Amino acid sequence: MTKKLNIGMIGYGFMGRAHSNAYSQVNHFFDLDYQPVLKAACARNEAEVKAFAGKWGYESVETDWRALVARKDIDAIDICTPNDLHKDIALAAAEAGKIILCEKPLARDGNEGEVMVQAVEKAGVPNMVWYNYRRVPAVTLAKQLIDEGRLGRIFHYRSVFLQDWTISADLPQGGHNLWRLDAGAAGSGVTGDLLAHCFDTALWLNGPMEDVTAMTETFIKERMHNLTGKMEKVGIDDACAVMTRFANGSLGTFESTRYARGHKSKYTFEINGEKASIAWDLHDLHRLSYFDHGDDSVVRGWHSVHATDHDMPYMGKWWVPGLQIGYEHSFIHQVADFLDGLAQDKVTSPTFKDALATQYVCDAVLASAQSQAWQTIKT
Amino acid sequence: MTKKLNIGMIGYGFMGRAHSNAYSQVNHFFDLDYQPVLKAACARNEAEVKAFAGKWGYESVETDWRALVARKDIDAIDICTPNDLHKDIALAAAEAGKIILCEKPLARDGNEGEVMVQAVEKAGVPNMVWYNYRRVPAVTLAKQLIDEGRLGRIFHYRSVFLQDWTISADLPQGGHNLWRLDAGAAGSGVTGDLLAHCFDTALWLNGPMEDVTAMTETFIKERMHNLTGKMEKVGIDDACAVMTRFANGSLGTFESTRYARGHKSKYTFEINGEKASIAWDLHDLHRLSYFDHGDDSVVRGWHSVHATDHDMPYMGKWWVPGLQIGYEHSFIHQVADFLDGLAQDKVTSPTFKDALATQYVCDAVLASAQSQAWQTIKT
Amino acid sequence: MTKKLNIGMIGYGFMGRAHSNAYSQVNHFFDLDYQPVLKAACARNEAEVKAFAGKWGYESVETDWRALVARKDIDAIDICTPNDLHKDIALAAAEAGKIILCEKPLARDGNEGEVMVQAVEKAGVPNMVWYNYRRVPAVTLAKQLIDEGRLGRIFHYRSVFLQDWTISADLPQGGHNLWRLDAGAAGSGVTGDLLAHCFDTALWLNGPMEDVTAMTETFIKERMHNLTGKMEKVGIDDACAVMTRFANGSLGTFESTRYARGHKSKYTFEINGEKASIAWDLHDLHRLSYFDHGDDSVVRGWHSVHATDHDMPYMGKWWVPGLQIGYEHSFIHQVADFLDGLAQDKVTSPTFKDALATQYVCDAVLASAQSQAWQTIKT
Amino acid sequence: MTKKLNIGMIGYGFMGRAHSNAYSQVNHFFDLDYQPVLKAACARNEAEVKAFAGKWGYESVETDWRALVARKDIDAIDICTPNDLHKDIALAAAEAGKIILCEKPLARDGNEGEVMVQAVEKAGVPNMVWYNYRRVPAVTLAKQLIDEGRLGRIFHYRSVFLQDWTISADLPQGGHNLWRLDAGAAGSGVTGDLLAHCFDTALWLNGPMEDVTAMTETFIKERMHNLTGKMEKVGIDDACAVMTRFANGSLGTFESTRYARGHKSKYTFEINGEKASIAWDLHDLHRLSYFDHGDDSVVRGWHSVHATDHDMPYMGKWWVPGLQIGYEHSFIHQVADFLDGLAQDKVTSPTFKDALATQYVCDAVLASAQSQAWQTIKT
Repeated sequence: MTKKLNIGMIGYGFMGRAHSNAYSQVNHFFDLDYQPVLKAACARNEAEVKAFAGKWGYESVETDWRALVARKDIDAIDICTPNDLHKDIALAAAEAGKIILCEKPLARDGNEGEVMVQAVEKAGVPNMVWYNYRRVPAVTLAKQLIDEGRLGRIFHYRSVFLQDWTISADLPQGGHNLWRLDAGAAGSGVTGDLLAHCFDTALWLNGPMEDVTAMTETFIKERMHNLTGKMEKVGIDDACAVMTRFANGSLGTFESTRYARGHKSKYTFEINGEKASIAWDLHDLHRLSYFDHGDDSVVRGWHSVHATDHDMPYMGKWWVPGLQIGYEHSFIHQVADFLDGLAQDKVTSPTFKDALATQYVCDAVLASAQSQAWQTIKT
Repeated sequence: MTKKLNIGMIGYGFMGRAHSNAYSQVNHFFDLDYQPVLKAACARNEAEVKAFAGKWGYESVETDWRALVARKDIDAIDICTPNDLHKDIALAAAEAGKIILCEKPLARDGNEGEVMVQAVEKAGVPNMVWYNYRRVPAVTLAKQLIDEGRLGRIFHYRSVFLQDWTISADLPQGGHNLWRLDAGAAGSGVTGDLLAHCFDTALWLNGPMEDVTAMTETFIKERMHNLTGKMEKVGIDDACAVMTRFANGSLGTFESTRYARGHKSKYTFEINGEKASIAWDLHDLHRLSYFDHGDDSVVRGWHSVHATDHDMPYMGKWWVPGLQIGYEHSFIHQVADFLDGLAQDKVTSPTFKDALATQYVCDAVLASAQSQAWQTIKT
Repeated sequence: MTKKLNIGMIGYGFMGRAHSNAYSQVNHFFDLDYQPVLKAACARNEAEVKAFAGKWGYESVETDWRALVARKDIDAIDICTPNDLHKDIALAAAEAGKIILCEKPLARDGNEGEVMVQAVEKAGVPNMVWYNYRRVPAVTLAKQLIDEGRLGRIFHYRSVFLQDWTISADLPQGGHNLWRLDAGAAGSGVTGDLLAHCFDTALWLNGPMEDVTAMTETFIKERMHNLTGKMEKVGIDDACAVMTRFANGSLGTFESTRYARGHKSKYTFEINGEKASIAWDLHDLHRLSYFDHGDDSVVRGWHSVHATDHDMPYMGKWWVPGLQIGYEHSFIHQVADFLDGLAQDKVTSPTFKDALATQYVCDAVLASAQSQAWQTIKT
Repeated sequence: MTKKLNIGMIGYGFMGRAHSNAYSQVNHFFDLDYQPVLKAACARNEAEVKAFAGKWGYESVETDWRALVARKDIDAIDICTPNDLHKDIALAAAEAGKIILCEKPLARDGNEGEVMVQAVEKAGVPNMVWYNYRRVPAVTLAKQLIDEGRLGRIFHYRSVFLQDWTISADLPQGGHNLWRLDAGAAGSGVTGDLLAHCFDTALWLNGPMEDVTAMTETFIKERMHNLTGKMEKVGIDDACAVMTRFANGSLGTFESTRYARGHKSKYTFEINGEKASIAWDLHDLHRLSYFDHGDDSVVRGWHSVHATDHDMPYMGKWWVPGLQIGYEHSFIHQVADFLDGLAQDKVTSPTFKDALATQYVCDAVLASAQSQAWQTIKT
């Protein structure tokens, strides 16, 4: 018999939609003991949250997240707010004994994150952070190939996350859709928003980093602020480049920017091992590039693996070979794994603690950019 | 106030899932007057159809399609059976005054198709055939670019649909998942299954064809038949190549096969016009290739358009630029357009009549392969 | 000790340059017993041929090809004239006992070609036709992979040669650079100029074809003729599409046009076998695409082989892995093989006789386009 | 009347061949006042240099470079030796009043380079360094597009040069073909060999860099030394990553390694500007990728420019549109430009002084890797 998991969603923006979709879809495609129920959606703007709830079929709405957290009929709190609210909500939800699913990054910095980890560990509640890209099938496949030892000793990890949506100086900062440009709400710019994804994947695929050196830049120094109505100094990093050494001896380079004309959401990574290399690009997320030095030399070359066959991770649940899935499916896979973990009483990664490691890397990156010196990463 | 449209689904296979998903998802992303309700699912195997209904939330099941058609609480019949049942169901549904949504191809041949068109026209019921690829955003964009006159006079249309899943001689024919290899159930092989897609798109983008010459081949002559348990002659075409002249003076080439090692579902088309060319590939369905002779010569080259920006067809309803959608979304778009058509009392293409034109092309192709002579296409 | 091979070159156009370059370069990169000597260049226009000879270091010039053929100090005649002169020159050269290297196509049609084959065979002179693409390393590699049996039974061969340089109706026909548009000089349009390359490669890689059906089109019906100064009917085929059955049971499709906007010289072929497939594109001639069904399923995908390693055909003679060679190198390789054949008294393909087979295919294609019926190919 | 330029070549390795080829070919394709004459080749190993001279048609040989420099019949000295000899030869050649063409990098470090610059400037002799990639047509096109202002303000420059040929621990260091692994002969590893190319291009396209931070790694710590026959510590950098700030305010990232499995000679750069972006890859050197934000939004995407049309830099001298040239042509173009500069009494870049700027960047990179701190670049 399917067990119900009552979801209380906080936030109704881009991520509110992506998560709601995942809850709606997961049981259509995966055989699971649990079924999420869209119990309540919460946001300060009552009209907006009612429209959102209607669209997705949430049974009720709240306008105060504390009221939501207090409800007995809610099993799990999903935090889709701007970053500055993550900590307070998580602490209250943990105290209330709720399962917590928190949008990434975990927090604005490691200090906040530590408190959050302590809270969920003390409360003993299942917790997860939505670093969804781990569950793009081609990325999960990359993990599998590495775990099988196909790459051998790793020499290099390189990753970028490039966008171009903030190049115009006329774009304001702050408020509903633009809180990511407001340092107060977001904590940082591309480092916490985009590089955090790169770091999460890297830590998962290639293990811990030891130290970093970084540079950041804010190309547009002032922008109109939607909340104050005035031109205000821009506090976030528009761009950030990082060099690092991994504990396994490999070298890492990372770069992110919102000023790379021609790239909308170009998150790529490439890993070079002694025996094989792999590369992936979010702009063609259904493909994995793979080079195997063990191939016969006359046919040796990068394989473009169209990761849609039924033996690819998660793909047996979808359509037929050759037919792509898209971005939102990574969230569905994450929910499927999380529900499966609940049923089997197993931890599903990335947990708050996993996400704290990413936060520590971000902290070291921003500190290095400030100090212009190498920084050891906290562990 | 949203109006309900009660769906009666016949069939629970691959297409049953794709259509059910479309009905479930459409109102999450599109603002529509109508909302589909999954009222009943129908199939002969009661256990299977109950499992299917449970998974997708159908309110009831039927094991006799005639009983489903007879139900008063059903507004629309969705035909997802093997091709040999399309006609009988459609005729009954039309007579019962139901809206009909029929999986492609419309029928096994033009004769069946003509009767079906007459039936829906006589009954005056809205009708549509699921040639879903028209609503892949990049394909819809292609139509838009052509309609804007960007290509100028068209010289060439070339299209292939390549698969490789039937190469093994050990694969049987017939029965649940393999009726597409059984000429009795399918009508034809790649011509009706795959080339029909190519022709539908071509007729839509480039107008009518006048005549064709074709060759077909059946590489594996006998296969075990799942229904008889015996080796039986294979009656379908494994591969088919076609040359044609369009009414607009352009030349067309088409090819389909299930013996193209390395291609899972490689449906491509390319159109060469006097001023510009476009090309598309289902294996990277989120991209459109575009070449514009009007570009400055030093930067002239094929554009790889990542069709995910919000001004791309349908994409404003989904995520943010750079993030792909996948195969199943084409069905969601088709339902969205159909529901919008219902609300506005407008016809949504492709109708049964549109699909009959594709059927006539298929008939001429198969006749030409038989006669080894050019065949005029019925209109 | 290196032996000299005295070359008499007839023609100084595009192919005159490509061949002269090959003679100049071959001994810089290949260790050979023979060394070509640029003894004489011949063309009717004395000023032009002198300039050409000066540029390439030809020791002398002639303005009458019969005078060149008559010279005792010439070992080999290289025919780089428009097609309408191939036969007469070849017959005279054979009679004079010269080695003959003839630019493709061998002749304007099979009748001319047969006479030429008879002449060289009767005279017993070494002869070769410049179907240079066989010696692009990636293409030679394709041949090697097929000969090793890596593809298994072949199901499909598809090939196109697309250009876009004659789309403008203002382009005249005839004369120095435009004789390819003049049916009298060229014999045919894209069929003899471009499809001949496709057929030569196909016959080499996939064996003989049995019959063909074809359609041709001349999109611009009249063009100013440079020789008459008047608007004249265009006699060549602007575009041609072909379907064929190979003797090995595989199906072939071919298409060529000079009206495919966006393609300059896009010659591609793809071969689908039971076990593996290969594909090649002249626009990236240094790469071969290869798909091997025998690869582990999780890393199976098209290999993009950068055919520059030293174990690739011919590549050990050039630079280091990763560094491309280009178009002209195919001619250098052909001369290298030809000189090596001379030294070892072995025939180097394609000979006149090999090229006659291609001519027969072209003849059948043009006849089919005329008759609108399948045509058996002469053997 | 063509003037002769008598070349004295020192070295006969990979670069000796590439330069000799350029001298041999340049007048076949370019109309120039000067014609190089292969007057003498010089190397210590007499048998080898004789074989080399025979192959390329050098009129004489020398075994002592000082003897070559002393010859009156030599106009220009071409230095193709390992890096440790560049300085001494250049000083002697300058003193002898010879034109000097020096293979890159100019020297093992900036100190050597400064002396060399002083010497050629004092002597007033034309001088050039073979940073050949500037003259790959697609790269020259990139320069042209930037100079036309098409990119607008530059935000980012990123470049890598990846190889994989030294991964095996069994590969020795030192001696004829492996001096690049010997710190004494080479000065540095990938920094001087590969990043120097990246820096030269970057300085040319994007202007001066102000400071850098870098990390280097030597993955294989000891290798057999061909000259001593013993296992010796490896002194070169196997890999190097760099971050920099350009004077124009843009951020730069650079990385090079010989441990990137799957990449033979993958030199890429990408430049992101406010209005447009460009990208290039040596593995497909005939293409330039270009993204123009000014394109109509519905057809906006990366252009893949097949840089073979006649209006592309240098391409009017070669074949027809669509037909590639290769690696060696960049050297031919450099000689063509140099000879043209001589004829017009104009300086041809990159001069020794231009190359010294690259040397300063390399010095700062290596110093930063040592100090683990940002380093200002000498100017």
